[in-house]
Amino acid sequence: MKILVIGGVAAGTKAAAKLMREDRSNDVTILTKSDDISYAGCGLPYYVGNVIENKSQLIVNTPQSFSKLTGAKVLTKTEVTSVDTKAKTVKAIDLTTSQENTYTYDKLVIACGAAPVKPLIEGIDKDGVFYMRTPQDAISLRERIESGEIKRAVVVGGGFIGIEVAENLHKQNVKVSIVEMADTILPMFDEEFSLYMENSLADSGIMPFTKTQVVEILGEDKVEKIKTNKRAMKTDAVIMAVGIRPATKFLEGSGIDMMPNGTIKTDTSMKTNIDDVYAVGDCACVFNEQTGAPEWSAMGSSANVEGRIAAKNISGEKTEYKGVLGTAVVKLPEINAGRTGLSYNGAVKSGYDVITAVAAVDDKAHYYPGADSFIIKLIADKNSHKLLGVQVMGKGAVDKIIDIAVTAISLSATVEQLEGLDFAYAPPFSTAIHPFSHAINVLLNKMKGDIESITPYEYLHGAAEGYRVLDVSKAPNVEGADFVDFTEIKDAVDGYAKDDKILLVCNRGRRAYLTQNVLKSKGYTNTRVLEGGTAVNTVEV
Amino acid sequence: MKILVIGGVAAGTKAAAKLMREDRSNDVTILTKSDDISYAGCGLPYYVGNVIENKSQLIVNTPQSFSKLTGAKVLTKTEVTSVDTKAKTVKAIDLTTSQENTYTYDKLVIACGAAPVKPLIEGIDKDGVFYMRTPQDAISLRERIESGEIKRAVVVGGGFIGIEVAENLHKQNVKVSIVEMADTILPMFDEEFSLYMENSLADSGIMPFTKTQVVEILGEDKVEKIKTNKRAMKTDAVIMAVGIRPATKFLEGSGIDMMPNGTIKTDTSMKTNIDDVYAVGDCACVFNEQTGAPEWSAMGSSANVEGRIAAKNISGEKTEYKGVLGTAVVKLPEINAGRTGLSYNGAVKSGYDVITAVAAVDDKAHYYPGADSFIIKLIADKNSHKLLGVQVMGKGAVDKIIDIAVTAISLSATVEQLEGLDFAYAPPFSTAIHPFSHAINVLLNKMKGDIESITPYEYLHGAAEGYRVLDVSKAPNVEGADFVDFTEIKDAVDGYAKDDKILLVCNRGRRAYLTQNVLKSKGYTNTRVLEGGTAVNTVEV
Repeated sequence: MKILVIGGVAAGTKAAAKLMREDRSNDVTILTKSDDISYAGCGLPYYVGNVIENKSQLIVNTPQSFSKLTGAKVLTKTEVTSVDTKAKTVKAIDLTTSQENTYTYDKLVIACGAAPVKPLIEGIDKDGVFYMRTPQDAISLRERIESGEIKRAVVVGGGFIGIEVAENLHKQNVKVSIVEMADTILPMFDEEFSLYMENSLADSGIMPFTKTQVVEILGEDKVEKIKTNKRAMKTDAVIMAVGIRPATKFLEGSGIDMMPNGTIKTDTSMKTNIDDVYAVGDCACVFNEQTGAPEWSAMGSSANVEGRIAAKNISGEKTEYKGVLGTAVVKLPEINAGRTGLSYNGAVKSGYDVITAVAAVDDKAHYYPGADSFIIKLIADKNSHKLLGVQVMGKGAVDKIIDIAVTAISLSATVEQLEGLDFAYAPPFSTAIHPFSHAINVLLNKMKGDIESITPYEYLHGAAEGYRVLDVSKAPNVEGADFVDFTEIKDAVDGYAKDDKILLVCNRGRRAYLTQNVLKSKGYTNTRVLEGGTAVNTVEV
Repeated sequence: MKILVIGGVAAGTKAAAKLMREDRSNDVTILTKSDDISYAGCGLPYYVGNVIENKSQLIVNTPQSFSKLTGAKVLTKTEVTSVDTKAKTVKAIDLTTSQENTYTYDKLVIACGAAPVKPLIEGIDKDGVFYMRTPQDAISLRERIESGEIKRAVVVGGGFIGIEVAENLHKQNVKVSIVEMADTILPMFDEEFSLYMENSLADSGIMPFTKTQVVEILGEDKVEKIKTNKRAMKTDAVIMAVGIRPATKFLEGSGIDMMPNGTIKTDTSMKTNIDDVYAVGDCACVFNEQTGAPEWSAMGSSANVEGRIAAKNISGEKTEYKGVLGTAVVKLPEINAGRTGLSYNGAVKSGYDVITAVAAVDDKAHYYPGADSFIIKLIADKNSHKLLGVQVMGKGAVDKIIDIAVTAISLSATVEQLEGLDFAYAPPFSTAIHPFSHAINVLLNKMKGDIESITPYEYLHGAAEGYRVLDVSKAPNVEGADFVDFTEIKDAVDGYAKDDKILLVCNRGRRAYLTQNVLKSKGYTNTRVLEGGTAVNTVEV
């Protein structure tokens, strides 16, 4: 079987390699306009930060080594210009000779990826404007840093790539700001998580400016200043990380169905609307596992899964893609953060009757060195009790919490099914009550009515209006609030009537829950626990 | 409701606290013969190693602080001597006054724990013999280390506690040996895993002696030497970690059903055979989630779950315990190891038609600093395709792999349901093809017949007899074996007939799989991949 693969980074090489393993008599050729294939796209920001020291580490395989390993052919500097799905041919230009060649196929895999968005801003072509898509992008930026030319940088875009680049510039002692058009950075997280991360970045010295749009990049030859709708900032470099766009323009008129954003529509076998034509990786539109809605998942991890699934289906082994959950994890200078499944707003939009719980818990036995906190948010459906989404922040292994959630959500678990699981415990790794179980217990308590609370999200949106803040921490913790130690409460709290609206605030939420429990037994009827306490919320009295 | 709780470490305090939260009008009293309650039993080895620096960190709550926090009463130095389940009374001796008192209850929770086994060996009472059960045990041992009296130590027992104590003694520069009666240390792991860990311990300078039984402890006043059935060893201390025994002798004649090992039989609500009497923690016998068979799970993590479940059921909220999976995780000096679900032998004994796969994979993006390997073993049922068990070793976050498996096994997932999940990926955390997914892919390939292999377990048991070892690593790696680079194979491998029995060995197993794929296409019919390669197996030609 003659198979052409357009593009050779993650999804393309994965598909090609698997196709050859499935049947070594296959004739598989990768066509790519680039010199490199199979590079570590996700590692680029870490090369900038010198976390990855050598260029060579960015290259997983050269075209030669890949061919030797897999038996697939690789044609580099070969830019595909059109696809004729009826004739089953592909036209491509040899970028060395400028000659156009026609290639035939039995099966076609499109893995042409995406290119960074280049906004139409005055000054965008100035020296000192960088992107973060190819090894050369990362190499050029690091050279400039190491030569001392870049002391200050502005990253435009507060998504995952922007944050990773900012973290790595910061590691290189570059003074970094992040400019983001949206209301928050990392908008795939719920608002309170994004705000928390903004504060964390600011604490580390990386300034995030949200609701801020770049208007112009100024400078004689080189970048000297960036002008936004709010302020102007001197800078030696601008790193554009405002998103990517599928590199699918050459498919116009091919009859292959595309989404409005230019991604290629696929079914669960990764096939397009045209028989024998498949699409995988950053150029493909897949679907959300929970809602079934089309979703663009431009991730190295999805690319690999999709490449494998396409290859299996092409080889005659029917395998269905399960779809994506929008899983992601990111390292900030001080904390890590991860998410999977539906966000709060996503779940509401999808029509669920949503209940959430935020728990601030230990990530390891509290007495073990390096122990810290996780802030875990669970999002569930009140009717089916299914877990819909999880978000987590902390210094430790947030990826563990996310991967548990990915497994649970993929298997359609209810909150009750996740109660009291026999998770791994020893002091260097976890807590006797596993942090995930702890969060599940809080959610169960809340579903049962044992905790009446205001969530950080609700708090941000004014739900505590009319409530008096009562500081119930172990030691006074909220400036301007009355303080009470619940273990000292006899019959009532002085100055608080039994039907007063009282917001119970402590460091993490747990002591507020214990206080509420006591106050209820004393006849208090209108108390609310502030979930996550001051660990998550900025409380002002 | 008047509730007595016998015992106050993990399960007892958890049950008491939750009972009070469920209804603050409950009258809950903990009776314990000890001075301390609620101490960090699992942290004791780490106190020995000075990983936990201060004694105070071992105490989660004092009796006073616990009472204040929860509203439950605590009677320390109060040893329960008998239970009358008809009269609903408990007799206990006040160890300070030697007076016997009788306490009545509506509900009884037995959480009396377990005590270390003290084998009947000559010399067992000598000064210098230690156990690892109470804070005082750990404190005494560390004092002796810090005073310079202990330069050499022998740990008797190669289970989790024994290994943890050995690791921590090693941290304190004590020369440690481990003596274990069984064929391997950590016998809850499959043999090849246990052997690997023995080698790893030996490499770090901790000598494990298996199939070795202690005969006598020698010395004038203090321990000077330990005599085994194989050898004698000079030592300054002996730490007995040969297991624990439920402290349930006082229940004889109470009518409460017990298992032959002295644990208390419970149902899924943690109730014993007697109405209103519950048992939780190390003294209780629970059940295996997969087989339904009775199982003793003397773990801090189970204790907490059981305490909570008992309290909920006593409070009228029907909640079923899910049972245990035998989950455990342990830190050795050089690697971590974890397990959950059925072992290979356990699965065979339970009547499953078992298939396993061992994969040696990266734990993080290979270019990210600190990246290392996981060795993952998946155990599944050939008929239902259900995942039955997982074992993992590596320098990194083995607990993540185990917790994914716990979630999957608890939700009865098939291997196919676990294919291509949207796990969390970024270079600091994982690989683009998640290590768990990678192992699942190997198992799927094997189930489909795409890989024909010999497992490390089969290899240990002679399955490679009659096979010629062919080294197919990237560079020669197996002494005395022929070497071939599969990318250079034209039509045949010189000197190997197409029907020769050939064992393909590489560093981790992957290259052997690729080689097998090529050799099959050239007409070779009898090749086998050695799963896990030399990373897992000790290959001799």
